Amino acid sequence: MSAYCLATYRSFDEKADFHKKATSIAVGLTVGSWTELPEAQKAQMEKHLGKVISVEVHEPAPGEAASSRYADITIAYPDVNFSRDIPALLVTVFGKLSMDGKIRLIDLSFSSDFLSGFSGPKFGMQGVRDLLGVHDRPLLMSIFKSVVGYELLALREQFYLQAAGGVDLIKDDEILFENPLTPLEKRIEICLEAAEQATQLTGQKLLYAVNLTGSTSKLAAQAKKAIAAGANALLFNVLAYGFDVLHELSSDPEITIPIMAHPALAGATYPSPHYGISPSVLLGKLMRLAGADLVLFPSPYGSVVMPREENLAIKHVLLTKNLHQDYAYNASSDAILKLAASFPVPSAGIHPGLVPHILRDFGSDVIVNAGGGIHGHRMGTIAGGHAFRQAIDATLQGISLRDYAQTHPELQSAIDTWGTPE
Amino acid sequence: MSAYCLATYRSFDEKADFHKKATSIAVGLTVGSWTELPEAQKAQMEKHLGKVISVEVHEPAPGEAASSRYADITIAYPDVNFSRDIPALLVTVFGKLSMDGKIRLIDLSFSSDFLSGFSGPKFGMQGVRDLLGVHDRPLLMSIFKSVVGYELLALREQFYLQAAGGVDLIKDDEILFENPLTPLEKRIEICLEAAEQATQLTGQKLLYAVNLTGSTSKLAAQAKKAIAAGANALLFNVLAYGFDVLHELSSDPEITIPIMAHPALAGATYPSPHYGISPSVLLGKLMRLAGADLVLFPSPYGSVVMPREENLAIKHVLLTKNLHQDYAYNASSDAILKLAASFPVPSAGIHPGLVPHILRDFGSDVIVNAGGGIHGHRMGTIAGGHAFRQAIDATLQGISLRDYAQTHPELQSAIDTWGTPE
Repeated sequence: MSAYCLATYRSFDEKADFHKKATSIAVGLTVGSWTELPEAQKAQMEKHLGKVISVEVHEPAPGEAASSRYADITIAYPDVNFSRDIPALLVTVFGKLSMDGKIRLIDLSFSSDFLSGFSGPKFGMQGVRDLLGVHDRPLLMSIFKSVVGYELLALREQFYLQAAGGVDLIKDDEILFENPLTPLEKRIEICLEAAEQATQLTGQKLLYAVNLTGSTSKLAAQAKKAIAAGANALLFNVLAYGFDVLHELSSDPEITIPIMAHPALAGATYPSPHYGISPSVLLGKLMRLAGADLVLFPSPYGSVVMPREENLAIKHVLLTKNLHQDYAYNASSDAILKLAASFPVPSAGIHPGLVPHILRDFGSDVIVNAGGGIHGHRMGTIAGGHAFRQAIDATLQGISLRDYAQTHPELQSAIDTWGTPE
Repeated sequence: MSAYCLATYRSFDEKADFHKKATSIAVGLTVGSWTELPEAQKAQMEKHLGKVISVEVHEPAPGEAASSRYADITIAYPDVNFSRDIPALLVTVFGKLSMDGKIRLIDLSFSSDFLSGFSGPKFGMQGVRDLLGVHDRPLLMSIFKSVVGYELLALREQFYLQAAGGVDLIKDDEILFENPLTPLEKRIEICLEAAEQATQLTGQKLLYAVNLTGSTSKLAAQAKKAIAAGANALLFNVLAYGFDVLHELSSDPEITIPIMAHPALAGATYPSPHYGISPSVLLGKLMRLAGADLVLFPSPYGSVVMPREENLAIKHVLLTKNLHQDYAYNASSDAILKLAASFPVPSAGIHPGLVPHILRDFGSDVIVNAGGGIHGHRMGTIAGGHAFRQAIDATLQGISLRDYAQTHPELQSAIDTWGTPE
């Protein structure tokens, strides 16, 4: 019995016959031609032929522009046509098709067979919580304020102030590459020394995600160098290197620390309504499939905005227990494969007043990630961390931030600065 | 003296202060903050600071929508901030920024220093011509009709018919991955045997670009396996793997055959006017920088359409002698670095009647690439190749296709089928 991976597209066209278009995709991206084949050959080629699963046409409502006419088309692609890697799947389902008019890849479903080539996140959400020993609350992460051009001691000071405020994770800036001022191994040494110092104050553990950069073929060696220097997490600009590179890194048994996926360059692909790949595929399913333990994506709250429903779709696919959808032609499969959940990290524009909104949208399985909302606190960076932890505590206890702030001056000051949109 | 790479963006906003936005990009994507720095520190950080080179605001004309207001903003990024690799450059100039509203990366210029990390195409246009021994005309390439699910003998027959018609290059389908029916080494063996047979008829040499697929870390070994099996060219789905992977493959001294870059997935990034990366950067400058000897891109002639001016922009950056623009702050540099030209291959929807248009737009330095325009010829695939060669000959001799067709029945038949838009 053949298995299939499914791709769903949103295709815009004022007058196309979308059913015909669906058939042309199913045939064109698999066996190439069908109706003119002799019957004997059809029998032989059947297992390679794509299938049209559904075509939902959305005619424009009265008053809507004709250009808003679209159809959601789902095609099943036989696994037998492509190898068990993300480049092969993407080139099959959206290689040539991506260039064929107004069309957007809005969903992907993987067969059990395809999924069997992927072990997923090595740590995942649970593993990251285990490393930190924190299971009862959302985690707090912070981002360096300025790093390019700064020396080790400046980085150390920034790091210490963030850590001392009670954050659980600190990430490098994604634009910090290998450089003579703060080279990888020295950076790890001095930052983890600062982490140790902060731990004496806070009693907390901390993960520092150091930026993994350089030539593709040297990334694994660079990661192992970082691990040898004591690194306990990696940051990786996945889209600058490709999902397969993340997959190979996350599958490497010698890379024994969590990998945090940064969404740099994702905005070149997801924001247009007519083109590209939806965020839940690009920053959701593919990141988890490729083995990201933590995934950053633009939050719906701040300056770099993604609509809330798209955020929730990312969250769903990072956390859901069943990241596959078997499609066996004329049959169904109940095989279940599970990949560890990836920790969702909605980012950008986050301040303490937004914490109740983040927890309402994400529950406790989220990392609250802040930059300016910590460094820009009027009472200093340490107080910035405290204000966030207080906002998290208040929300978990069901107390309004304004009430809690009456006895917590750091939170009060944050609310005075940035407000709380309740 | 510092050197800089330049990025130009088209930023859309109904009322933004674009000059302020430009400054915020130049500072935010480099040193992080500037105005609040002490003067002593400014002196030290100056060499890491991005510079606003130009801001050209385009106000909507009367009657145009306010949403059409945009500015073209050019920022210079100090080379000292990033390593000499494409991921570092792209993450710096369009990592976070890609997610910040309606903004599109429309140009990139590389400093001599950055370019010094790249040796460019190993063969380039001239090297490909030398391999084929053809210097006096545009080349002709053809694409298999159907490959997925077919066996070796069927591929061999398709190959022979294409080759016997006088094409110079044949490429694998980009969706043909490693598979049991037509595995890489067997495919090379049987196709090159067919090429040899055709050469006895045509007296021509031929390059067969075999699709390089699989896990990223094994691509170089796979390429060498292909070369050992006799392969004389490679096809590569660059965007599914990342530009750095192409760069590493093209720089590998043991990969001694030309690499043809396929644009699969490019449509996820270039078509929107408001987001993404322009074709001349994505399929032009970055492909050449990464070392593609031949570059396929959607033609402006056929079904998968790209506007003609964007095609000409790709052509320009693939062929121009000077692929760099030095920007030394308060100084100019006359250093000149040259990368070999990449052969432009406008593709999709090409039939013989379009040859005069292709040659008018591209001159002789182009590869005419056809699929259905060869296989769909009423007199057969061999005649399909002949019709194209006749169209090329006629155009080079300044004879109209209709006149030439009077004594060339294959061309006449092609014109009868597809017309000639003269």
